[in-house]
Amino acid sequence: MLRAIAHFPIIPHLDFNVTILGSNSAISDHGRHPTAQFIQLHHSYFLIDCGEGTQQRMLQYKVKWFAVNHIFISHLHGDHYFGLIGLLTTYNLLKRTQPLTIFGPPLLQQIIQLQLDASGTKLNYELTFAATSDDDFRLIFENEQTEVYSFPLKHKIPTTGFLVKEKPGERKLNKSKLSQYDIEKEDYKLLKQGIDITAKNGLSVKAADVTDAPHAPRKYAFCSDTIYNEDMLPYIADADLIYHEATYLHESEERAQETRHSTALQAAQIAQKANAKRLIIGHFSSRYHQLSPLLEEAQLIFPNTELALEGTVFKL
Amino acid sequence: MLRAIAHFPIIPHLDFNVTILGSNSAISDHGRHPTAQFIQLHHSYFLIDCGEGTQQRMLQYKVKWFAVNHIFISHLHGDHYFGLIGLLTTYNLLKRTQPLTIFGPPLLQQIIQLQLDASGTKLNYELTFAATSDDDFRLIFENEQTEVYSFPLKHKIPTTGFLVKEKPGERKLNKSKLSQYDIEKEDYKLLKQGIDITAKNGLSVKAADVTDAPHAPRKYAFCSDTIYNEDMLPYIADADLIYHEATYLHESEERAQETRHSTALQAAQIAQKANAKRLIIGHFSSRYHQLSPLLEEAQLIFPNTELALEGTVFKL
Repeated sequence: MLRAIAHFPIIPHLDFNVTILGSNSAISDHGRHPTAQFIQLHHSYFLIDCGEGTQQRMLQYKVKWFAVNHIFISHLHGDHYFGLIGLLTTYNLLKRTQPLTIFGPPLLQQIIQLQLDASGTKLNYELTFAATSDDDFRLIFENEQTEVYSFPLKHKIPTTGFLVKEKPGERKLNKSKLSQYDIEKEDYKLLKQGIDITAKNGLSVKAADVTDAPHAPRKYAFCSDTIYNEDMLPYIADADLIYHEATYLHESEERAQETRHSTALQAAQIAQKANAKRLIIGHFSSRYHQLSPLLEEAQLIFPNTELALEGTVFKL
Repeated sequence: MLRAIAHFPIIPHLDFNVTILGSNSAISDHGRHPTAQFIQLHHSYFLIDCGEGTQQRMLQYKVKWFAVNHIFISHLHGDHYFGLIGLLTTYNLLKRTQPLTIFGPPLLQQIIQLQLDASGTKLNYELTFAATSDDDFRLIFENEQTEVYSFPLKHKIPTTGFLVKEKPGERKLNKSKLSQYDIEKEDYKLLKQGIDITAKNGLSVKAADVTDAPHAPRKYAFCSDTIYNEDMLPYIADADLIYHEATYLHESEERAQETRHSTALQAAQIAQKANAKRLIIGHFSSRYHQLSPLLEEAQLIFPNTELALEGTVFKL
């Protein structure tokens, strides 16, 4: 029995979650805070953007904040990164030793380094900066299970979105079909990779006959801040979940254009044209105390829209 | 009757208050936040230090945060200034036009300017930096009613304390004594300044006979972060209120020395030797969930000690 378990391990559910830590634009207001999102993809933990007070919200919502090894900053407006230096020094004060990599616009390194120098801080952990560029769709990070791409957004200053993508998983062994063959233990690995093998009795065994296809790799696209921009559609096409900023109602389209932001209707149009499964809207202007009009506007175009309410965990 | 009121105006109570906005050292913990204090002295509103999230706490405690025209930063450890850039840009987003002056270590200007430049921000209001120096007791600001001095503290990096001092007020007209004379209206002003005058009937009138002395000018001394340091006693002597950091209990004196901080007992000794009227202790280490042992330790030496609990308003 133990052996059987070893052959057919119970594959743990591989989580892909987005936790909203901040949903307001520009400043904190109406109990809403500046942009930050915590992502779990299998065993990787990411932070996207880090407005002032993000470390407090990570504690509040009990996310695994100390497991974050990669932080992605979309652009250098303060509501997307003023909490970063505080988080980095808090990690240090709490004796972090695990290396940390920050992906963001080139000037971010200088801003952080200047503040570390000013306080005479030498970090206990290795901090690496990887400069992003808003000129193209680029693979900026990958590990065994995950890929992260940056892509250009259109805002007042250089800004990138991020596509967090699961790598295709292995095929799953089909226990009942496999029981018809006598197969070397070592060959299971090949079958899971889709490679045909030969059974002990010399019979040829096709991988497709004894394994099931893995689930389709999931994709999460983070799109903030930006004007309405169809150029990014190829990058975010068929995403399981898109977060798109929706700073204004469409009646304020001119204001959105002027400040290089989007309306709820435009966010919904992007989700629709990208053939996304679901949409989250956020980065709400402080002029909106009530958010339901923004939600209703987006749902008219793209019904499967939800509000980026803080503390909400979106499961892909 | 109206005329009498005009001659003997009801002098409004001239407030001198310190509101604690943050009381923890290093990081936010136990519901306590990094250092920040809001000061009202007559019609001047100051902020001393500005840890991350200070703008949120100013809203929470309903202080007149938009009236702050002068901000004093003691040193460049993050728990004393990481909230500053966020506050400055929030003022800007909320259309502040009133000029603002920041007093702090020289590098602070570069840190702020770099972040404003990175976001392409041109402030709507005039922002002035006045570099502090930790080499001596210096008058760094004054207006009609107020003086602020900086003075050296002994910490890991250049650090100053601040002495906020009321200027001597005018003498107060004594209504009943004045009624014995027939005095030109214009002469009241001279009497209030302590100048003798001549009544309408030629009688000489001594200011001291018809006016009362103003209240003694009040003084508030802010001392954080620092080791035990008697050198500062002349600067803070006879203060009505001293805030002194008390990061540790005295049983951790070695740790205090090592990190260049003070113990509650040492804070009390400074207050006693300075002949202060009252002491507030703060900047508590996160190792202390309960603060009463720190308070009790200080009160053994200096009974008139209170804890810098957030939201508390200390009236001088």
